[in-house]
Amino acid sequence: MDLWFEDFTVGRQFTTAGATLSEGQILDFALHWDPQPFHIDKEAAKDWGYGGIIASGFHTLVVAFRLFYAERLINKCSLGSPGFDELRWPRPVKPGDTLSVRCTVVEARASQSKPDRGLIRMRFEVLNQQGETVMDFTAMQILRKKPA
Amino acid sequence: MDLWFEDFTVGRQFTTAGATLSEGQILDFALHWDPQPFHIDKEAAKDWGYGGIIASGFHTLVVAFRLFYAERLINKCSLGSPGFDELRWPRPVKPGDTLSVRCTVVEARASQSKPDRGLIRMRFEVLNQQGETVMDFTAMQILRKKPA
Repeated sequence: MDLWFEDFTVGRQFTTAGATLSEGQILDFALHWDPQPFHIDKEAAKDWGYGGIIASGFHTLVVAFRLFYAERLINKCSLGSPGFDELRWPRPVKPGDTLSVRCTVVEARASQSKPDRGLIRMRFEVLNQQGETVMDFTAMQILRKKPA
Repeated sequence: MDLWFEDFTVGRQFTTAGATLSEGQILDFALHWDPQPFHIDKEAAKDWGYGGIIASGFHTLVVAFRLFYAERLINKCSLGSPGFDELRWPRPVKPGDTLSVRCTVVEARASQSKPDRGLIRMRFEVLNQQGETVMDFTAMQILRKKPA
């Protein structure tokens, strides 16, 4: 089932499968991309008030996008993203947490200049196993319309 | 030289070292985190109008943060980030491009409730070797004040 721009109607919601972030994965990602002490050093993390290491927010972001992309909703129609807005990390992600994503289409606008595509905005909410929001953001995505 | 909240005065600007993104690095990152055809498949990318594969925007983002963090500006004082705003990818990043980051402090506000810290906003501009902006965003960062 291929989806196209026309399928992303305002209010439509998608929920992804989950993914558990192990301590090893959190340490490994952060050592490479975001080596702040509270992401990579269990001893130093004791001084930071999170009760141990927490995942890099960038790690949460890419896991969320990968879970979303794996649902194969935009694999045929995506033409890329101009950007994101209002990205927040309201709660820490801890080793062993299982994340999933709830996406809601909040805007859909056909292109005036290019009749083969449109722009959507989707609100991404990344949830942990308690259903608490650990990250949210609004993503723009350019999508192809259904081929004639 | 350790920096603290007080050192991030509005208007202060920092420039990072550069990093070149090879084709292999672009393919490898995207295969794991953002496997859209125009990031991972040189043949399919011909149909997408970018003239070849381009880097995942998430790749550009984490490279930018790593370059910033490597400058050791916030390694002692960072208490984490509540979020980012207005993230845009105005130009593609292509294999062989060299990225660097220019950060400008646009706001600095001492915490009313916690006297040991403050919140700053920094405008990040990620530039390629031609000095063109390939990504920009505004990051919030909570920073410790200088210890008494």
